Amino acid sequence: MQARSGRFREPLDETVAAFQNSFPFDQRLFRQDVQGSRAHVRMLARQGILAQDEVEVLLEGLDRVEAEFAEGRFEARPDDEDVHMAVERRLVELVGDAGKRLHTARSRNDQVALDLRLWLREEMELLDEELLGLQAAFLDLAEAHPRAVMPGYTHLQRAQPVLLAHHLLAYVEMLERDRERFRDARRRMNLSPLGAGALAGVPYPVDPQGVATELGFAGVCANSLDAVSDRDHAVEFLAAASLLMVHVSRLAEELVLWSSQEFGFVELPDRFATGSSIMPQKKNPDVPELVRGKTGRVVGHLVGLLVTLKGLPLAYNKDLQEDKEPLFDTADTLHATLRVLAALVPALRVDEERMRRAAEDGYLTATELADALVRRGVPFREAHHAVGALVAYARERGCRLSDLTGEELVRFHPRLGVELLPLTEPQRAVDARKSWGGTGYAQVEEALARARRRLEQRG
Amino acid sequence: MQARSGRFREPLDETVAAFQNSFPFDQRLFRQDVQGSRAHVRMLARQGILAQDEVEVLLEGLDRVEAEFAEGRFEARPDDEDVHMAVERRLVELVGDAGKRLHTARSRNDQVALDLRLWLREEMELLDEELLGLQAAFLDLAEAHPRAVMPGYTHLQRAQPVLLAHHLLAYVEMLERDRERFRDARRRMNLSPLGAGALAGVPYPVDPQGVATELGFAGVCANSLDAVSDRDHAVEFLAAASLLMVHVSRLAEELVLWSSQEFGFVELPDRFATGSSIMPQKKNPDVPELVRGKTGRVVGHLVGLLVTLKGLPLAYNKDLQEDKEPLFDTADTLHATLRVLAALVPALRVDEERMRRAAEDGYLTATELADALVRRGVPFREAHHAVGALVAYARERGCRLSDLTGEELVRFHPRLGVELLPLTEPQRAVDARKSWGGTGYAQVEEALARARRRLEQRG
Amino acid sequence: MQARSGRFREPLDETVAAFQNSFPFDQRLFRQDVQGSRAHVRMLARQGILAQDEVEVLLEGLDRVEAEFAEGRFEARPDDEDVHMAVERRLVELVGDAGKRLHTARSRNDQVALDLRLWLREEMELLDEELLGLQAAFLDLAEAHPRAVMPGYTHLQRAQPVLLAHHLLAYVEMLERDRERFRDARRRMNLSPLGAGALAGVPYPVDPQGVATELGFAGVCANSLDAVSDRDHAVEFLAAASLLMVHVSRLAEELVLWSSQEFGFVELPDRFATGSSIMPQKKNPDVPELVRGKTGRVVGHLVGLLVTLKGLPLAYNKDLQEDKEPLFDTADTLHATLRVLAALVPALRVDEERMRRAAEDGYLTATELADALVRRGVPFREAHHAVGALVAYARERGCRLSDLTGEELVRFHPRLGVELLPLTEPQRAVDARKSWGGTGYAQVEEALARARRRLEQRG
Amino acid sequence: MQARSGRFREPLDETVAAFQNSFPFDQRLFRQDVQGSRAHVRMLARQGILAQDEVEVLLEGLDRVEAEFAEGRFEARPDDEDVHMAVERRLVELVGDAGKRLHTARSRNDQVALDLRLWLREEMELLDEELLGLQAAFLDLAEAHPRAVMPGYTHLQRAQPVLLAHHLLAYVEMLERDRERFRDARRRMNLSPLGAGALAGVPYPVDPQGVATELGFAGVCANSLDAVSDRDHAVEFLAAASLLMVHVSRLAEELVLWSSQEFGFVELPDRFATGSSIMPQKKNPDVPELVRGKTGRVVGHLVGLLVTLKGLPLAYNKDLQEDKEPLFDTADTLHATLRVLAALVPALRVDEERMRRAAEDGYLTATELADALVRRGVPFREAHHAVGALVAYARERGCRLSDLTGEELVRFHPRLGVELLPLTEPQRAVDARKSWGGTGYAQVEEALARARRRLEQRG
Repeated sequence: MQARSGRFREPLDETVAAFQNSFPFDQRLFRQDVQGSRAHVRMLARQGILAQDEVEVLLEGLDRVEAEFAEGRFEARPDDEDVHMAVERRLVELVGDAGKRLHTARSRNDQVALDLRLWLREEMELLDEELLGLQAAFLDLAEAHPRAVMPGYTHLQRAQPVLLAHHLLAYVEMLERDRERFRDARRRMNLSPLGAGALAGVPYPVDPQGVATELGFAGVCANSLDAVSDRDHAVEFLAAASLLMVHVSRLAEELVLWSSQEFGFVELPDRFATGSSIMPQKKNPDVPELVRGKTGRVVGHLVGLLVTLKGLPLAYNKDLQEDKEPLFDTADTLHATLRVLAALVPALRVDEERMRRAAEDGYLTATELADALVRRGVPFREAHHAVGALVAYARERGCRLSDLTGEELVRFHPRLGVELLPLTEPQRAVDARKSWGGTGYAQVEEALARARRRLEQRG
Repeated sequence: MQARSGRFREPLDETVAAFQNSFPFDQRLFRQDVQGSRAHVRMLARQGILAQDEVEVLLEGLDRVEAEFAEGRFEARPDDEDVHMAVERRLVELVGDAGKRLHTARSRNDQVALDLRLWLREEMELLDEELLGLQAAFLDLAEAHPRAVMPGYTHLQRAQPVLLAHHLLAYVEMLERDRERFRDARRRMNLSPLGAGALAGVPYPVDPQGVATELGFAGVCANSLDAVSDRDHAVEFLAAASLLMVHVSRLAEELVLWSSQEFGFVELPDRFATGSSIMPQKKNPDVPELVRGKTGRVVGHLVGLLVTLKGLPLAYNKDLQEDKEPLFDTADTLHATLRVLAALVPALRVDEERMRRAAEDGYLTATELADALVRRGVPFREAHHAVGALVAYARERGCRLSDLTGEELVRFHPRLGVELLPLTEPQRAVDARKSWGGTGYAQVEEALARARRRLEQRG
Repeated sequence: MQARSGRFREPLDETVAAFQNSFPFDQRLFRQDVQGSRAHVRMLARQGILAQDEVEVLLEGLDRVEAEFAEGRFEARPDDEDVHMAVERRLVELVGDAGKRLHTARSRNDQVALDLRLWLREEMELLDEELLGLQAAFLDLAEAHPRAVMPGYTHLQRAQPVLLAHHLLAYVEMLERDRERFRDARRRMNLSPLGAGALAGVPYPVDPQGVATELGFAGVCANSLDAVSDRDHAVEFLAAASLLMVHVSRLAEELVLWSSQEFGFVELPDRFATGSSIMPQKKNPDVPELVRGKTGRVVGHLVGLLVTLKGLPLAYNKDLQEDKEPLFDTADTLHATLRVLAALVPALRVDEERMRRAAEDGYLTATELADALVRRGVPFREAHHAVGALVAYARERGCRLSDLTGEELVRFHPRLGVELLPLTEPQRAVDARKSWGGTGYAQVEEALARARRRLEQRG
Repeated sequence: MQARSGRFREPLDETVAAFQNSFPFDQRLFRQDVQGSRAHVRMLARQGILAQDEVEVLLEGLDRVEAEFAEGRFEARPDDEDVHMAVERRLVELVGDAGKRLHTARSRNDQVALDLRLWLREEMELLDEELLGLQAAFLDLAEAHPRAVMPGYTHLQRAQPVLLAHHLLAYVEMLERDRERFRDARRRMNLSPLGAGALAGVPYPVDPQGVATELGFAGVCANSLDAVSDRDHAVEFLAAASLLMVHVSRLAEELVLWSSQEFGFVELPDRFATGSSIMPQKKNPDVPELVRGKTGRVVGHLVGLLVTLKGLPLAYNKDLQEDKEPLFDTADTLHATLRVLAALVPALRVDEERMRRAAEDGYLTATELADALVRRGVPFREAHHAVGALVAYARERGCRLSDLTGEELVRFHPRLGVELLPLTEPQRAVDARKSWGGTGYAQVEEALARARRRLEQRG
């Protein structure tokens, strides 16, 4: 069914019809479209705009249309130009003339705006579950290795020893912000656009608040022109999704690094790894690589929608039809990504021994000596310089700091002494960072407990 | 001053020094850097990490350094590799060895994270003012033309008549969401990263909560690795900024259209318009064009930062230095854009007569007849088709709907009649849209009053 | 079929298998994959790596696999992880053990690189045809209105009168650059990667040049690591596609403007326009709006791939699997866009009269008077200023320049006189621009003829 | 100086003037602007449009203006709204009324289009030098380590041993494509837009071809509307720049990896590395990190310009002013990046021993055994599976393939035997890849020689 009034003297060109047909993708809003129509029709009855018996016929018809779709029995026609017209066309077939009243006091402009908000709301609820699931996966892995020490890196150079659990909790924090961002986006978009009509409101005594309440919205959009032309929620969703993908791209990068022969910190179980078509020895971390790669896809969708929206005059323009496919693909990508990571993360085989050895090698605890000098009254910059020279000396000698003699130490600073060397033991350096948010044992234990509690209380 | 310890055996190559020097742009954080150092130093005193007299020397020194910068007397050196080292270098020059203690229990990693959050917070506060200012500009213009009727457009085709005030209020809604987005971003980032040290926390009995409170933060970042590697707030700011620019790009497009000879709805005062170097008659809407064009710049910055962050392992990487310039340029662009629009909008000369005539021409009120038929029991789809054919007929005859006779009307639908024709008068069609959020006179009056109140109560 | 050697002790997790399965989209390369395999196998025979009889079995088997796919009879299995393994799996089913030799001296890494280049080459050839088709459409429309004068715009303000044909030829120029860009991209990527193996070349006496020649390539990639990790051609294609979409977005914007009631320069035939579900009078330019909107989609794909590629170490990484979907969608979008525009453009109904009137109104020819003054020895800046004041005067009086008296003229500049007024006639102003590339009649006639010739000679 | 004719009744608002003033950045085109004016003025004389004596005055004046700028003596005025008006204003000050004739037969629209093309052409020439310089750097490093064997990676897993020189040559190939892309872009844009005037051509007997020839262009833009509204060359430059940055981001990622303690393949000389403000042992690869990070900046600029251009009607719109800053910043970024890398790459200290050991560890030569089985008549898939199982066995035993006994080997495949084990020696595996483009010694030697020759012959 096409939205062509009697003013048109020739049918739509077939190429054009195909070009502008959105049913192949917007059928994904089928359920939401029927849900919105149901609420709309009930309101029309309450307000006396449609007769009660007509409404019953319409509601029953909508049930049948929805069932056909749910059961894969819905047959689209080539001229069903979008999901709205498809539903209405089928409804008319099923219930006759009453079906032609469905569109009373409504336009596709407010209708599609409604469908999209309903859909987005569901997706964000699902995402919240999945984000919690991935947080849980990090906590599981952290709790399984509560005391594992690994090198913390800056510039991908070994910097200071940290607890693996502390490192994993950094991702829990990122995901928590992601949850919040989606929650804010959900709250902001949780208004019903129905009643805006084509662009100016409707000349019927409708009750948009009633529709909104029935559909679980917190209110009604305050301006009809804005209601049909606003796609902020779509952009906000894609922006939050892009940031989430950036987060998991960082995790993915680390998993690729950690499962390399060079790092060797983790091994993927065979069921999570893939092989090479040619090299028999290969075991590849395809999952994190793909996750990293998919970041591009989601950022691309964000950009695409911003480009599409730029410079559009009010109110509805057909360009807005391009909002759907990037949203659908983004939601699918996020769901798949979060689920596969939630399965993979707790299945990682951590090589605690290899991590520990890496933390012992590379002078990661040189800062401890500098800080010790500070506590002995040496200005930090001076301490920093002296210990740097000491590290250069030890590197050349090919020994660890703990191998140096008192005589060697004092050559670099008179207040250095062998009694400070135990400070350079990684576990001790880890535990010295007792400051809030630091990697000290007690700190991390509490942070883990807090995160677990938050998870159990669902945020 | 460069952050090179004694382990380095040769000075930094000059090309490299120039390549990585951030002082030319991060000096913009000078004030925030000093502000953070002050709070840090006071905390070190309270915690007994530095002696009280050292702290007084340091605070006085910081005052002097800040004053030098504020008064344009600060002399940067080629080897001041960033704002932090520049401040510290100068401090040591001014107060001697005490200055070398400034960096105790702190790293540039948590320091720059702090500076950036302080800066962003200020910018967002300023933006909020500016957004309110632009909202006020829309309200001023709307209140000056409370009953002006213009064509509402969809697909840039005349759709239904609306009030100019209603149209302007759509932008007030968009800006209100922009304000909320910045507010959410501000709330989410309002945590202090200080105490995270280089990446793992610090081995001193610091009091990060105290520092946070002094600096007006709501709390402290919960994970040190996250604290130094997180740039979510920067991305979130750029995403909110991009959406804001998309909003004003839509306004800009409309101003360009409206001030064209074809539309002629508004005229820019001469002081807001520019000329041509060659065509003497030209009066160009440079301001809205530039605003529209600058959307690209801000979206580009958002993309740039997302690209930069993608795939970075934890914790700090030098890539993050690239976060600043896009933020600075975005803030400057937003400030300039919002201010120039807030001046321009209320200065627009609206041609109410031309708007009204446009609303009378183009069958914008054909929907009224369809809705009237619905009220007479005709299913909407049938009414829609009949009135479409009627419009085609009137177009061919070159007349308005109100010029048609009863005889002509009934040819298209038996329930049409001349008594319905007054409904096609634009003012009447406007006022018929009494639904919440619609363009009816009373609706818009109330919406204006609500917006004005909100503005006066500052949100 | 999965590429798992005997080193794996457990089957691939199902979630992971689904996550990394590319067959749902890379089956689009089925034909190219078989084409490449055929050339590979023939070469293996020529080089004596496979026996001639095995090769015949393989070739016949490949024919059967291809036929199954072409006829929709190919049955994919859940564990066909990509198009390459699907083809090989089916081949083994059909021809037995010989099929297991197909992968000799080849890896999926060079194989997929080959398939993608073959596919891109075909797409670019198709695009060239379509670009020529759209150029022809512009020429058809221009030739149908060789003398139609319309306002040329800068800043969307009427600037100087131009020929419609001249305006349309601007797009022909843009499309010609698009053709060149695709041609350059095609030339640059027209090298065969086969022989690179997994990344390092192959230890067989292969003949990559022979394969390249058979497949129509100009040569062989010079470095095996580069051959399997290079996706420059994909980015270059997306960049050229983005620019093409920017071009048609400009056209689309103009079509939307021109078909507005305000401009009224063109009307879309009914078969190219769509209606409103609610407003019976609406006739919407959905096609150009969608074209404009789809610009976002293509730019988004470009960005997505750049994000994906950023920071990947050599050689092949699984992230690269994400290159395909954006390419496929971009090619589809370009094909559909170019075809629908090629149908729409020549079908436009041009309102020459309305265009002409617009060119007469708005002082578009004021520059003529300034230039006339220059010819009388007045410095350009002085002339420009004087005529500007004259325009302001005429505007206030509400008359055209040609309505002014000699007395009025000399008030603005002593060298002005009524004998200059005929210069302000639009046709004359058009024809005065005889400079190369200008809108003068003869110039445009020649430009049209040149473009037509180029088209007939296919570039 | 502002381009305001006598039609304006009030001066430009100061906020607006500041908002639209481009002199702060477009002064970068000062030299090109004067260069273009010189050619324009000479042509006007040749064509008799200006008198010879006026032209001499103008040329001398232009020399003086240019000298003032070059020597830093040029004083901009607040109302110099762009570089063109600044030059003209100063010229009039210096030479009087003759200066007012400079703008004869020219508009800022074609003038700025010319300036930008002149500037871009110079930048691309410089870039070509720099790209050659970086290629030379790779060759220098490769030639210094002609036989160094390292692991080649796919999925960041050790895949097959390769020569370091082979790996470096992959980048030489990428850069060669970059050079070609810039060359194609240069050729395509090497047309002069002068003569297009504001948009429609000029009504003077100008000689655009003469100007083009004098300025080194290959021709003149064929359509005046296109000439002033076309920014394809800017986009094409940014697209080529983005791809170049993607290439160096891959190199940067590898340098970061290789200089990590885990890989240890290279060490940066101290003069190319930076330290930590807090950790005395740190030596950070800031340069490659920044290079990687700056990829975002350049991709962002590309996106920004595409967003700006999207949907602009013809011809010139002020939005186009936003083209300059991204171009300038991109050129600066590329120059700095290429230069710093050209200095850094040959200075890398390669640890050949560490590379070799890595290539020996991780079963990188398992493919050799599979290929040996193929040569003994085993189908590749069967060989691949058997050797995979063998690798799993060796891993569990913790031994290399070369440590296995014949008895162990035949358990995995009857055709395996100890006589095959020497094939698993890395150097031998490297040299076995004699195929074109492969890593075999002779191949790489020739490839190096070819690249060196190409470099010496400058492409």
